[in-house]
Amino acid sequence: MNLSDVFRADHASAFGPATIGNMTVGFDVLGGTLSGLGDTVHLSLTPCKTLGQSNVSIESIQGTDSEQLPLAATENTAGKALLTLLKGESLNVDIAVRIEKGIPLGSGLGGSAASAVAAVVAMNALLQRPLTQNMLLKYALEGEAVASGAKHADNVTPCLLGGIAGVFSVEPLSVRSIPFPAGMSVAVVKPQVGIKTEAARALLSKQVTTSLMVKQQARLAGFILGCVTHDIPLIQDSFQDDWIEPQRKNLIPHFDAVKEAAAGEGVYGASISGAGPAIFALCKDLATAENALHRMRKVYEATATGALAWACEIPAEGAYILQETEGYSA
Amino acid sequence: MNLSDVFRADHASAFGPATIGNMTVGFDVLGGTLSGLGDTVHLSLTPCKTLGQSNVSIESIQGTDSEQLPLAATENTAGKALLTLLKGESLNVDIAVRIEKGIPLGSGLGGSAASAVAAVVAMNALLQRPLTQNMLLKYALEGEAVASGAKHADNVTPCLLGGIAGVFSVEPLSVRSIPFPAGMSVAVVKPQVGIKTEAARALLSKQVTTSLMVKQQARLAGFILGCVTHDIPLIQDSFQDDWIEPQRKNLIPHFDAVKEAAAGEGVYGASISGAGPAIFALCKDLATAENALHRMRKVYEATATGALAWACEIPAEGAYILQETEGYSA
Repeated sequence: MNLSDVFRADHASAFGPATIGNMTVGFDVLGGTLSGLGDTVHLSLTPCKTLGQSNVSIESIQGTDSEQLPLAATENTAGKALLTLLKGESLNVDIAVRIEKGIPLGSGLGGSAASAVAAVVAMNALLQRPLTQNMLLKYALEGEAVASGAKHADNVTPCLLGGIAGVFSVEPLSVRSIPFPAGMSVAVVKPQVGIKTEAARALLSKQVTTSLMVKQQARLAGFILGCVTHDIPLIQDSFQDDWIEPQRKNLIPHFDAVKEAAAGEGVYGASISGAGPAIFALCKDLATAENALHRMRKVYEATATGALAWACEIPAEGAYILQETEGYSA
Repeated sequence: MNLSDVFRADHASAFGPATIGNMTVGFDVLGGTLSGLGDTVHLSLTPCKTLGQSNVSIESIQGTDSEQLPLAATENTAGKALLTLLKGESLNVDIAVRIEKGIPLGSGLGGSAASAVAAVVAMNALLQRPLTQNMLLKYALEGEAVASGAKHADNVTPCLLGGIAGVFSVEPLSVRSIPFPAGMSVAVVKPQVGIKTEAARALLSKQVTTSLMVKQQARLAGFILGCVTHDIPLIQDSFQDDWIEPQRKNLIPHFDAVKEAAAGEGVYGASISGAGPAIFALCKDLATAENALHRMRKVYEATATGALAWACEIPAEGAYILQETEGYSA
């Protein structure tokens, strides 16, 4: 069998966007995509050096916090996603991987998911018979799990689908895109501390009171209904978290002050992105997000806390191919 | 001041439909309206006997289980709703009330709510300046609370609004109608045992595990998204309750067998209505509900358990006025 029977080309690159996990009301359920910020993964295929033993090698990782990421393919989220894909699809090929990190490590902005999703999307572009969305998610999820220690699909799903996405079940995987009012945008600040998802998860209480569950599940339901029906008052009233946020906010410098600063006309609410420390504010449009961002940054400037900051749209598109793949040339 | 300055007429009657509380995935959040089954409330106004001291008297209660219901206005859900309305709106008038119960007592089908809602809807038809939907809900909620011991709006809201309704907050009250696929219908069986809402509530655990919360809130979110976007697979996958149902099902004779019997093509799921003992199955259309009902009834017939049974549509309209009010004739 020739590689060209299976693969359309021998190299491809894809961009995986940063994502907001949990999205205030959807712990492990909701995620949103961010424009502009993300990771890029380049793949090059060569015939297997050892027949029947596919190999994935991470050749380089560049960009933000790249020196702290593992080069061993089994420990790297992109590498692990590709290894799982090769095994799952019984593909025999060696893959050389180059990663450009745009998303800071331990930021709560879905960097692990972005590299894993970009890797499987690039690989998919090389296949003569592309995989289904659900299979891509499954492989990306296996990749992301090496970093987070558990399978949670609220980053990989929006990263692949774009927009705002809901994870309604992980086993079996059931996800949907959630329509939302056009223009909705996000202001994000990330103070210069890193939080490990595993650690942030370990500090969560294993129990919730029934009354809090009633309140929070109504907010999740209200947020989704509000998004789909463009009911802005319902979105705004619903976008609050009395469950996860109080348990995690002390990990984040000046959280309360930043959240308070975010508040304003057209700002639907602010909370922790994923496991933090990034804080995001959901806004009616990009101009509102830019204004909110300005107020949020000022808190960190006034306290001499280093912080990164972005104002982003929520793009309809998720991960995408960066360049046309060419005819297979091996 | 003449009564005719404030009131359009001196008598009115309204019908309040039965409702499914909780609706499997929306404990205290979701409710659905049932066609056909309900309570009727007749009001007659007369000038206050004692000036400035409005009086509500329950003249008669007829129909299903009526002999077990309190005639004291302060303990009767219709009476209490009217008393609260009179006080809240500073109205001076005496009201004589006749109630026809169609909904069995302690069935989990929203009988307390139906009488309270029908009372405020009839009263509203008599006012020269009608009240807002939210005010009507508030007064009905005060009425219903005398029976259930607490304020939960997942029966009064669908009873007033019709269709499927969501309660996103009780204080302050925030409710919405939830669009759903046309034709969706319900099979309901009620075995001949009564359950007090207060007792069914008291046996619920005050705590929930975080993992169960994630699962159940995803199901609520999925059900609502599925309803609004007409995504039948998502409705079906989501319509399951591992939270409340396991805690309450032992109060209901042959629950597991009835639930199993309900299952079939076009049946999205079956669970407890409100606090029970009614069991309902959500179905794609009325014919499917009639078939499911036939299978569910057979379980009770085979075990010689007395049971009432209904196949109902989910009407778009909630409580309604039964007769044209006439010009005020006092």
